[in-house]
Amino acid sequence: MVQVEGILAAVKAEAAKIDAYMRADLSRLQATTDALLLEVLDYGLFNGGKRVRPLLVVLSARLCGHSGDDAYTLGCAFEYLHAATLFHDDIIDHSATRRGKPSVCRQFGTVAAILAGDFLHALAMSTVGRLAGDKGLKIFCDATTGMVDGEFMQLRNAENHKLSEQQYYDAITMKTGLLIAAACEVGAIYGGGTDPQVKALRDYGVHLGYAFQIIDDLLDYLGNPGRTGKMVGNDLVEGKMTLPLILALNQAEPREKERLLTILGAGGEERAACVGETAALIESAGGFRGARAQAVAAVESGIAALQVFSSGSTYERNVLEGLARYVLTRDK
Amino acid sequence: MVQVEGILAAVKAEAAKIDAYMRADLSRLQATTDALLLEVLDYGLFNGGKRVRPLLVVLSARLCGHSGDDAYTLGCAFEYLHAATLFHDDIIDHSATRRGKPSVCRQFGTVAAILAGDFLHALAMSTVGRLAGDKGLKIFCDATTGMVDGEFMQLRNAENHKLSEQQYYDAITMKTGLLIAAACEVGAIYGGGTDPQVKALRDYGVHLGYAFQIIDDLLDYLGNPGRTGKMVGNDLVEGKMTLPLILALNQAEPREKERLLTILGAGGEERAACVGETAALIESAGGFRGARAQAVAAVESGIAALQVFSSGSTYERNVLEGLARYVLTRDK
Repeated sequence: MVQVEGILAAVKAEAAKIDAYMRADLSRLQATTDALLLEVLDYGLFNGGKRVRPLLVVLSARLCGHSGDDAYTLGCAFEYLHAATLFHDDIIDHSATRRGKPSVCRQFGTVAAILAGDFLHALAMSTVGRLAGDKGLKIFCDATTGMVDGEFMQLRNAENHKLSEQQYYDAITMKTGLLIAAACEVGAIYGGGTDPQVKALRDYGVHLGYAFQIIDDLLDYLGNPGRTGKMVGNDLVEGKMTLPLILALNQAEPREKERLLTILGAGGEERAACVGETAALIESAGGFRGARAQAVAAVESGIAALQVFSSGSTYERNVLEGLARYVLTRDK
Repeated sequence: MVQVEGILAAVKAEAAKIDAYMRADLSRLQATTDALLLEVLDYGLFNGGKRVRPLLVVLSARLCGHSGDDAYTLGCAFEYLHAATLFHDDIIDHSATRRGKPSVCRQFGTVAAILAGDFLHALAMSTVGRLAGDKGLKIFCDATTGMVDGEFMQLRNAENHKLSEQQYYDAITMKTGLLIAAACEVGAIYGGGTDPQVKALRDYGVHLGYAFQIIDDLLDYLGNPGRTGKMVGNDLVEGKMTLPLILALNQAEPREKERLLTILGAGGEERAACVGETAALIESAGGFRGARAQAVAAVESGIAALQVFSSGSTYERNVLEGLARYVLTRDK
């Protein structure tokens, strides 16, 4: 297994290459595109993102035997769609900041954020259609419509204190998992993977998405705001039911369960005052341990899926394995 | 030439067929899509639109020799993209109504309007990629990015009282023309048209787009609010430079020109009080006549482009010709 430092170095080098491809795209657009639009795109795209989705595209393509540079162009499309989603999400969630600087909608206004997102959408779809064909485009577009559907589901799930584990998994699949899985699957298709290889990479992506989102939800209660850049307990304040809380409600003693439900039934401001108490209740009911165990299991399932690649491309497989394990250690 | 009544009957019958295809799409989505999202889509899509873009797709495909029903499916994709644009535009322009009922953003909120637009975007792109291939998808996506670019250009052009005719044409091409031309071009490609046929239909679409937008701009000053559903002089109040005004500024006597510039230099409220006076100044400087003459010339150019279809498919060619002439007579 490649060590964590090795993984991070590999990821960093690839991310730099992806950034270079995106910069080249923007340069090409310069002659024909409005200067303000370009400024918005530049601001929104180059914000220190880790480029996980493009990286998954490139590694999946290579693992299936394709090493052409177009894989980077295809990877960029996934970053464009991801960025478009963030531009629009920040409007929807009234988020003032993103990675420590003003969000696109805060910096340039709602109009620019909507339009720049639409622009990236179309740019992304066009690229995927060109490089990954009908089949790749359908997966990509299904991931997009699924993400939208997931946002509506989230609106509906808010304040549903009876959310089941299954509903939680459905929601995180749509929110995060679909695009991550699509990056792996489309990369594999582009790379000429066999059906079992494509399926394996999709499975890997689905489980990586689970782990990623569960850790995110754990960090919301347990993270260091100095590292995450987010307030502790945001999800609770917003009435969002995440896995640690769902597990705690399922496993808590009657009195603790009742107390948790009372807190959830209170207004956002009152809940904000109870973040510490809620975290203690989740901890004592085993909600954090249980959620973490599920994240670990997801990572193991994802890694197990890669076993079809028994020979060759050991490097790419190692990086994908390392990336999955790294998700469990992240603190921001 | 098919008479206007015949054209309208043909258009109406085709629009009903397109509506049926869209309803079938929504039915198919029902099992897997959030109920509120479906409600938003239903509300926003079935609002009495004339389905001009899908109609152009279907007629162009048929004119090039293809009569399969998939042309309707492809046509729907253009209506989806058009609707997505309107959902987002109504947020951007703070429009409370659309075709006499509350706009999507007013009825369901900004969040739903952004997300439903994104959903339709992806649905449209996926369909076009599947049915019209890489080449069709690129044209479709270029039209989309061009429309966004045009919105930015419009932001920049606002209150630019020196806007030239050329800049006006560039702006309306991006705002309206690209998607109309794309409907014709992609329909022709899907229909298996030869290169000259594809080019002819694109040219037709470009000129139809010009005529459509110029008439729109004339109706803004000269329309009957009871028919158009819009206040007279909106464009002036918003400081939007349209062709009648641009021509008037170019052709007016110095004193009249100065007066027009004074009105333009005033605030929106003051301009609102001067709509009648401005219309009279445009009229006396020949701005309306000149703009109308350009719309007529655009229609004639569009019709002339169809001459490559010298034999066969007379019906489709007649409807396209009639549609172009009809644009000149519309009063809403």
